[in-house]
Amino acid sequence: MLEQLTILAPGLLGGSVARAAHARKLAKRIVIWARRPEVRDQLRAQPWCNQVFDTPEDAVRSACLVVLAAPVEKIVELARQIAPALPPGAIVTDVGSVKSELCRACTTAMPSHATFVGSHPMAGSQKTGWENSTENLFEGRTCFVTPLAGTPSAAIETVASFWREVGSNVATLTPDQHDEIVAHISHLPQAIATTLCSFLAQKKDAWRDFAGGGLRDTTRIAASDATMWIEIFQQNRDEILRALNEFQNELHGFSAALANREWDELRTRLESGKTYRDGFKS
Amino acid sequence: MLEQLTILAPGLLGGSVARAAHARKLAKRIVIWARRPEVRDQLRAQPWCNQVFDTPEDAVRSACLVVLAAPVEKIVELARQIAPALPPGAIVTDVGSVKSELCRACTTAMPSHATFVGSHPMAGSQKTGWENSTENLFEGRTCFVTPLAGTPSAAIETVASFWREVGSNVATLTPDQHDEIVAHISHLPQAIATTLCSFLAQKKDAWRDFAGGGLRDTTRIAASDATMWIEIFQQNRDEILRALNEFQNELHGFSAALANREWDELRTRLESGKTYRDGFKS
Repeated sequence: MLEQLTILAPGLLGGSVARAAHARKLAKRIVIWARRPEVRDQLRAQPWCNQVFDTPEDAVRSACLVVLAAPVEKIVELARQIAPALPPGAIVTDVGSVKSELCRACTTAMPSHATFVGSHPMAGSQKTGWENSTENLFEGRTCFVTPLAGTPSAAIETVASFWREVGSNVATLTPDQHDEIVAHISHLPQAIATTLCSFLAQKKDAWRDFAGGGLRDTTRIAASDATMWIEIFQQNRDEILRALNEFQNELHGFSAALANREWDELRTRLESGKTYRDGFKS
Repeated sequence: MLEQLTILAPGLLGGSVARAAHARKLAKRIVIWARRPEVRDQLRAQPWCNQVFDTPEDAVRSACLVVLAAPVEKIVELARQIAPALPPGAIVTDVGSVKSELCRACTTAMPSHATFVGSHPMAGSQKTGWENSTENLFEGRTCFVTPLAGTPSAAIETVASFWREVGSNVATLTPDQHDEIVAHISHLPQAIATTLCSFLAQKKDAWRDFAGGGLRDTTRIAASDATMWIEIFQQNRDEILRALNEFQNELHGFSAALANREWDELRTRLESGKTYRDGFKS
């Protein structure tokens, strides 16, 4: 059990980390800092929060494990801000969706007696904010842990164990591998769902009311928070562009097969897609 | 209540029509023909089936309403086959996903004392076959009814009422309007989900195991039956190509905004997509 778990700037993910750790008794104390005073007051009333501080520095002074739960473009800044206040042996992680630059910058920001190990729990919802957090958000979901080459293995194991204890399946990868993978399995689908919706938004309103389950499912994530996604597209721009270009080539091949009435080619694509999708667990 | 409802070649949709009509007591007799003798034997044992004939002609001889539930490219052939056996006043409909050519050909095939009115219930599942049919498949779902200019209004109303009575929301459109709409809200999403899966199938197998709910939902329909979809792509090729081309332009615009770091443009697209998706009923 951790003496003190500190969560900085909790939203949906940070709040869920606190609730999950509380429910599973993973820390003696759960300490939080939030940017806005009114949120700090609300958090003080939560049963899964032992103490709320008015500055991030004060919140980390006695922390064993710190989770930086701020929006992805604020994480490095927050790591730099808390660095002088971190106690010896402190381990710092985050929940950011993009890892390469972030992990290098956060590692550089750390004092010699503290260690940064990046994390990215693949959990979330269209909903945002700590009010929507739940103690089971991470159960059965992948959590990437993304150490650099020089990261001490004890710190990696502390972070990986923590995510396993809240129910995640941990995958340990380099930050670069991580960014390539999520560009394909998370950011590309978001670009596609958004584009399908922004395209259909130009058509007659009534069409939407005819939508079946297929369109509903295919577009669900288009309802996600635009500000969060702008940050992800900014941070992982190069990998997403690569994935988008390759996907556009694949879609062009589909269109060409249809235009040329190459039914065998179209069948191969439909069957390849079906085989891939049938292989999803559960 | 109909004296006799006949369903020809039931699969998932046809079986669900029979179950729904039986559960809601919409017909005194539910009569079925299926192509394969072993399926006919299985259907004879179903409580929602009063009689099974060995030929489609015999199955329609006393029908008030006939539902052609065969795969979409077999429907016209079946309409021609039963035409000489249809009794005076018979109304014939179908469940095909593409309507323009089909409705014209089926209408031409009818004898002067019978009427064809096309239908397309927007219901289904990745699963196929009458074994997977359910009595509530049509509840709350859109059903398109697609008369031609000369179709008698009494026949249109008989077909529309039937679909309303099994729980559908009926939308009456011309076959051409129908094909344009479903190209956008059903066939384009299928092409996209299939292509996303056939693209990711070329990447490392392990990536799939990391997939979150977003990729799962976005790709669910890629698991649909390839044979059924080849027929739809064949039948609605022109409209789907038009929708695909426009979607590709929209996706190119998204990529260009990302490549050029036009963050305001990207935000506009994300917000337009979100607004559209947030407008879905329920």
